[in-house]
Amino acid sequence: MKTETQANVSQVISPSELLEHWQGHRNLTRKMIEAFPEEKLFTYSIGGMRPFAEMAVELLSIASQGIKGLVTDQWEDLKNDMDHGNSKAKLLEIWDQTTEKINTYWPQLSLERFHETTVCFGKYEGKVYSLLLYFVDNEIHHRGQGYVYLRSLGIEPPYFWERL
Amino acid sequence: MKTETQANVSQVISPSELLEHWQGHRNLTRKMIEAFPEEKLFTYSIGGMRPFAEMAVELLSIASQGIKGLVTDQWEDLKNDMDHGNSKAKLLEIWDQTTEKINTYWPQLSLERFHETTVCFGKYEGKVYSLLLYFVDNEIHHRGQGYVYLRSLGIEPPYFWERL
Repeated sequence: MKTETQANVSQVISPSELLEHWQGHRNLTRKMIEAFPEEKLFTYSIGGMRPFAEMAVELLSIASQGIKGLVTDQWEDLKNDMDHGNSKAKLLEIWDQTTEKINTYWPQLSLERFHETTVCFGKYEGKVYSLLLYFVDNEIHHRGQGYVYLRSLGIEPPYFWERL
Repeated sequence: MKTETQANVSQVISPSELLEHWQGHRNLTRKMIEAFPEEKLFTYSIGGMRPFAEMAVELLSIASQGIKGLVTDQWEDLKNDMDHGNSKAKLLEIWDQTTEKINTYWPQLSLERFHETTVCFGKYEGKVYSLLLYFVDNEIHHRGQGYVYLRSLGIEPPYFWERL
């Protein structure tokens, strides 16, 4: 039987490395939520775009409902509503619950599963690895937008490379 | 000998899939450069951040000098200067040259190489797969910032999922 290290070198990235990558990005997004003044988090906008909290709700919805679907192959329409009551603390609480949910589901993804085709949220067909990368990329994309919001508010955002 | 498809299912993502992922993102960034009015590309800024052309130069520098370093393990300091003469056409020309350079170097990355440790640009130590993901993530991050620039200029950005 191969050791973890031997198994890793025969592939580009292992499942546990991809989980660490995803959760590292999610942790940086969590720092971004913390960095916003609470009122600005739910109201501040540039160019008609959504406040950062609305983007965070999308990221949470995709991650929470997405990990379950990727593992079970059972999908429902994406629900973007979330009962945060415009509270930063509540949003962070839901964030942490989703972190745990991902960690719980993740070990059930077999290596073969990453190349199975699924229909994400009943709408978007793709391979599991590709949909997962889409979740992560979409988070980086919207978080990058949040960086502009913070900078334009005169607030220094967390460092992009600080994922822990 | 395993076929390409058989080899893929025994790993999260294959080298050729990761290349396609990277180049897909680079192609979307290329569309972003095209979407900016030429003068705004080199001058427009929010919150004291760099104009999008300066971010694009960083992305080009990292990709072009980075792929060579990841393959050869020979690194120099990152050079961020580029002779584009504030011309969008010239920037796109350099973009396309870099696309070709990546495609040329990529097949020289062995599967084992992705888990070798290297010192990127003589400064940032990490495994090759992790540094590569950093290149891609950094591009998504800054491109997301460019989306806010375009929206605040009243310009519809390209769709995030259009990578071809």
